[in-house]
Amino acid sequence: MKILLTNDDGINAPGLAALAKAVAKIGEVTIVAPATEMSAVGHAITLSDPLRVANFTKNDHFFGYAVNGTPADCVKIAYWALLKNKPKPDLLISGINLGSNTGINTIYSGTVSAATEGAIIGLPSFAISLATFTDPNFAAAAEFAVKLAEIVCRKPLPAGVFLNVNVPNVPKDEINGVRITRQGRARYIEEFQPRKDPHQRKYYWLTGEKVKVETDPDVDDRAILENYIAITPIHYDLTCYSVIESLRGWQIEI
Amino acid sequence: MKILLTNDDGINAPGLAALAKAVAKIGEVTIVAPATEMSAVGHAITLSDPLRVANFTKNDHFFGYAVNGTPADCVKIAYWALLKNKPKPDLLISGINLGSNTGINTIYSGTVSAATEGAIIGLPSFAISLATFTDPNFAAAAEFAVKLAEIVCRKPLPAGVFLNVNVPNVPKDEINGVRITRQGRARYIEEFQPRKDPHQRKYYWLTGEKVKVETDPDVDDRAILENYIAITPIHYDLTCYSVIESLRGWQIEI
Repeated sequence: MKILLTNDDGINAPGLAALAKAVAKIGEVTIVAPATEMSAVGHAITLSDPLRVANFTKNDHFFGYAVNGTPADCVKIAYWALLKNKPKPDLLISGINLGSNTGINTIYSGTVSAATEGAIIGLPSFAISLATFTDPNFAAAAEFAVKLAEIVCRKPLPAGVFLNVNVPNVPKDEINGVRITRQGRARYIEEFQPRKDPHQRKYYWLTGEKVKVETDPDVDDRAILENYIAITPIHYDLTCYSVIESLRGWQIEI
Repeated sequence: MKILLTNDDGINAPGLAALAKAVAKIGEVTIVAPATEMSAVGHAITLSDPLRVANFTKNDHFFGYAVNGTPADCVKIAYWALLKNKPKPDLLISGINLGSNTGINTIYSGTVSAATEGAIIGLPSFAISLATFTDPNFAAAAEFAVKLAEIVCRKPLPAGVFLNVNVPNVPKDEINGVRITRQGRARYIEEFQPRKDPHQRKYYWLTGEKVKVETDPDVDDRAILENYIAITPIHYDLTCYSVIESLRGWQIEI
């Protein structure tokens, strides 16, 4: 099995190293990841600047390709350029991200956007994130990634669909199981903290707080809170089909 | 009516000027837009850097606020900081973008992401794009934006839903009408053109070509080709509900 790995925390992130080590047991791994951290880049791609690819060495061994671009760029350049004349990957995994990618944050996530790009290309794909920013223990998530990799290659998802996986940051024996979930809808109250720089010019830092955590057990965030692994099937067709007929009834004319 | 405008081509883009001029007839306009071009930034937000806001003057008059961030940043900072103690906008319009935002490109679009952010906040919102990169004539699109603004404020969409509008680049009398459409699914064949810089270092430019144009008249791109204005209702819940039950049947365990 040929496995393509990427992430949005950058090629030197510990979560990617943990993932690479784990999945090396079941396949041949190629790593193509951003040279620097690319969190919250959404589904950005680089059109106005050229992309460069550098060999990235870790512990004196070739580890992967570092790209001066976004996670989506990495998947594109891996598939269409770096692996162009080589056997195509059987699977794309993006992660293991430091921090959950659940609820509304799914749309800002570079980790998820890389898996989206995999699904666009037609590769079985999943994104995997660890629900913490402090004291990460990637062991359970890495082990689960191996298990899921084998399942996803055996049982194909419909075209254009991939999995967004979020793992609670607890030892494996404290994980209660796996839930198939939906993207939560909890809103954020955003705050921009105004500050002055040493030259007395104003600037803002974005912070935000979730309005409420949803209680439905099928919501991704709720599953994590209850120490379940949350798996949400995701697609990139943003059309809201349920309102098409009523919109037609509006009879909008030019 | 209080109208918030933004875009992804940058605050000095002609499409934004045309939109601002047109909608000034029906409301009080506030412009908060990226200081520089931010195309294909997807739904990126700026977390690692501070945001700055500058007054932007055009023809010796205050035109709007220029933000060193993405379109999504602009909507957030407008709503949560710049307009914090003022009456909230009744409507958000993002555009008029130079170039269509249809099919798979919808997910890369900064223009669309700004309208997504409006929908998240709970504002009636639409994105509007002109389907050309050359010889743009914004007149018909700007006139239609005014009409749609009045409709969208009168007939609310369900929570979390907004409209992605694409207008063919022809004079108004050549537009055949308005179609309520869905996001096209045509794939791209991507190509990375390798080049050498003057220092003999390799770099790549991303280019791409659509595999086929879909023939279903309800597809956004097809509507444009047939000189219709395409309106696709969009939401930001990426969950693929149709596969949830079958995924549960997989009985994935840790």
